[in-house]
Amino acid sequence: MPPTNLTGVAGVSLDSLTIGNALVDVLATVDEGFLVREKIVKGSMNLVEMSRSKHLHSLVNSRTEMSGGSAANTAYGLASLGGKAGFIGKISADRLGESFAKDLANVGVKFFPGVTCQTEDTGRCLIVVTPDGNRTMNTFLGAASLLDAADISREAVQSAAVVMLEGYLFDRDAAKEAFRVAAEYAHAAGRKVALTLSDSFCVDRHRVDFLSLVKNDIDILFSNEDEIKSLYQVDSINEALHQLRSDCEFAAVTRNEHGSVVIDGEEVVIIDAEPVDSVVDATGAGDMYAAGFLYGFVRGKTIEQCGKIGSIVASEVITHMGPRPLVSLTSVVPKDLLSF
Amino acid sequence: MPPTNLTGVAGVSLDSLTIGNALVDVLATVDEGFLVREKIVKGSMNLVEMSRSKHLHSLVNSRTEMSGGSAANTAYGLASLGGKAGFIGKISADRLGESFAKDLANVGVKFFPGVTCQTEDTGRCLIVVTPDGNRTMNTFLGAASLLDAADISREAVQSAAVVMLEGYLFDRDAAKEAFRVAAEYAHAAGRKVALTLSDSFCVDRHRVDFLSLVKNDIDILFSNEDEIKSLYQVDSINEALHQLRSDCEFAAVTRNEHGSVVIDGEEVVIIDAEPVDSVVDATGAGDMYAAGFLYGFVRGKTIEQCGKIGSIVASEVITHMGPRPLVSLTSVVPKDLLSF
Repeated sequence: MPPTNLTGVAGVSLDSLTIGNALVDVLATVDEGFLVREKIVKGSMNLVEMSRSKHLHSLVNSRTEMSGGSAANTAYGLASLGGKAGFIGKISADRLGESFAKDLANVGVKFFPGVTCQTEDTGRCLIVVTPDGNRTMNTFLGAASLLDAADISREAVQSAAVVMLEGYLFDRDAAKEAFRVAAEYAHAAGRKVALTLSDSFCVDRHRVDFLSLVKNDIDILFSNEDEIKSLYQVDSINEALHQLRSDCEFAAVTRNEHGSVVIDGEEVVIIDAEPVDSVVDATGAGDMYAAGFLYGFVRGKTIEQCGKIGSIVASEVITHMGPRPLVSLTSVVPKDLLSF
Repeated sequence: MPPTNLTGVAGVSLDSLTIGNALVDVLATVDEGFLVREKIVKGSMNLVEMSRSKHLHSLVNSRTEMSGGSAANTAYGLASLGGKAGFIGKISADRLGESFAKDLANVGVKFFPGVTCQTEDTGRCLIVVTPDGNRTMNTFLGAASLLDAADISREAVQSAAVVMLEGYLFDRDAAKEAFRVAAEYAHAAGRKVALTLSDSFCVDRHRVDFLSLVKNDIDILFSNEDEIKSLYQVDSINEALHQLRSDCEFAAVTRNEHGSVVIDGEEVVIIDAEPVDSVVDATGAGDMYAAGFLYGFVRGKTIEQCGKIGSIVASEVITHMGPRPLVSLTSVVPKDLLSF
C-alpha cells in the first residue's frame, strides 16, 4: 500500500521525532596510514573510552567541530527541508552540549533533552575522512550513553507522524529499553516506527534483536547495502532485498554511487544516484537520505518520490565536509517534489 | 519460477537460434556535426535506401568493415562463450555475403541462410560513432529485407532451446510473418521464445504489435531503458518495470552505466554494471548482454547469474570499436559462472 498523507492526522504536530545519540562531531582528514597505525577498520563506528578519545583527538591537526549524531542529523535535514522535526537525546550542561542544542534550535528542530545529565560530558565523535571520501568514526558517548526510558516523553513521541530510532541505541541496554518504550508509545497512538541500522558492525553485534524488530515492530527500515547484507548474512544485495520484502512494508537501501532501492510491499523501486562532481565526505549521507525520504513519506508521496528526495538531499551533503547541509535543503530539491 | 536447465531436453541441440537481419557493419567515427548536418537523431537506427546509403558512406573516411546484425551478434557471442548457436538471416551471393557467412562459421555458429537471394545485395549498416561513445545506425537492408516465412526452417527452430527474434523484423510485413511462424514452431515443440526490442523508434513504430506479443507470446524479453519506456509510454523506469512484471515471465532491461535489471516473475533483481576504464563504442552491448544471459538461462542458472554473465560480456564489447568481441568470451567470464 503506498504511503498516505499523515500530516493532517489528529494529534500530529511533527513530521518526525528522532531519537539517538546527541554528539558533537569533530571532523579531520587523515591518510590511510592513520587507520592502519591505529588499527581501525575503515568505514566502521567504534565506541571509545574518554582516554582513547583524547589520544585520537591529539593525533589529528586541523579539524572542524559541528553538531552531529545520526538521528539528530536526520531531524536537522527534515527541518532544513521545511518539515517539522523533533529530537530526543542526552547532553550535559557544558560548552559542547550548549552548542549542540543551539544548532538544532537554529534550524527549528524541537529538542527534548530529557533529564539533564550531571555526571558525564557531552558526547563527541571523531570522524576521520580518508582521501577516498570514506569516513570512520570514533565515538565517546559520554552523556549520550545515559539516555534511558525516563527520557522518552510519551507526549513528544505521539505528536510525531513517524518516530525514528537509530540502531546505535542498541549498544546499551538502557538505551535499548528507551527505544522499546518509544516504539510502544508510537504504535499505541497509531504512529509509524522507523529504524536506521546505523552501521554493519552494529548490526553484527545485535543481529537477532534487529531481525526480530524488523519482522515485528518496524514500519520503515533505512539501511545501506553493507548493513542489510550483514542483517541477513548474505553476499548478494538481491538476496537481501528478497528477504527484506517479506519482513518489512517500507524500506530504503542506499548504495553509494549505485543509488538506492526502495521497497513498498512487493514493489521494488530503483532510484539512481544524483550525479555529483566529486564525493568529498560521505558523512551524513544516509541520515540526509532518511530526512528526505521521511519528508516525502509523511506527505503521502509515492515511494519513488520519497527515494528521489532522499537521493537529492544526500547528494548535497557528500560534496562538502560534515554531516549537515550547508544550504537550506528547500533550495536543493525541485519544487514539484516538495509540493503536496 | 527460476530458469531450469534446458540443455538436456530431447531434440535440443542448440542453446539458441537467433533470427534477424544479416548485415555487414561499416563503422566510422564522426563528430557531432555529422549528425546535425545529415539530420540524424543520435542513437537511432535509420532504414535507408541504396542511394542514401551510398551518400553516407561517401562522407566518412577511415572505416572498419565487420559482420554484424543484432541477432547474428548474439549468436556469435553465445558461440564465443562456448555455447551452441544458430542463425537464420538472408544474404546475397556477393563479397559481403560471403564475408558474413565466413565470420559466423569461424566462431562455430550454425548458419541457416534460407532461400538464396538473387535480386538484392547483402545488407549493410553504416554505424557512426560520436565522441561520447554513442552509435547511430543507417541501415540498407538489401537481401536481409527479403527474409520471409519460407526461410524459417521448422527443424532448425525446434532444435534450439530458445529462439530469439529481433524487433527490427517488424519493420517489414513478410519478416513479421517469418517471426510469427518461428514463434509458433518454437512453442509447438515446447521451446522458449525471446524477443529483443532492438530500438526505441522501432518500438514506437510497432507498439501495439509488440505489446500484444510481450503479453501473449514472449517468454524472455530483452530491452534497454529507452525501449521499455517507449513500449509502455512512461517516463519512469520503475513504472515500466511494474508493467513488465505482469506482462512477461523473464525480462532483462539494460541501463548503460546503471547496469541492468532482470525480472523473474515477481522477483526484481539488480545487476550493477561491470566497471570499464572507458566506453569506446557501445555497438553490440545489448546483443552481447543477451548472449551472456541466454548462455546462463538455458543452463538453468539463476536469473541473477544470467544477468551477471550478460553484464560481463557486454563490458568487453564496449571497450573497443565494433559489435563483436575481440577475444574468446570464455576468457572474460569467471569460470564459476560458466560451469554448471
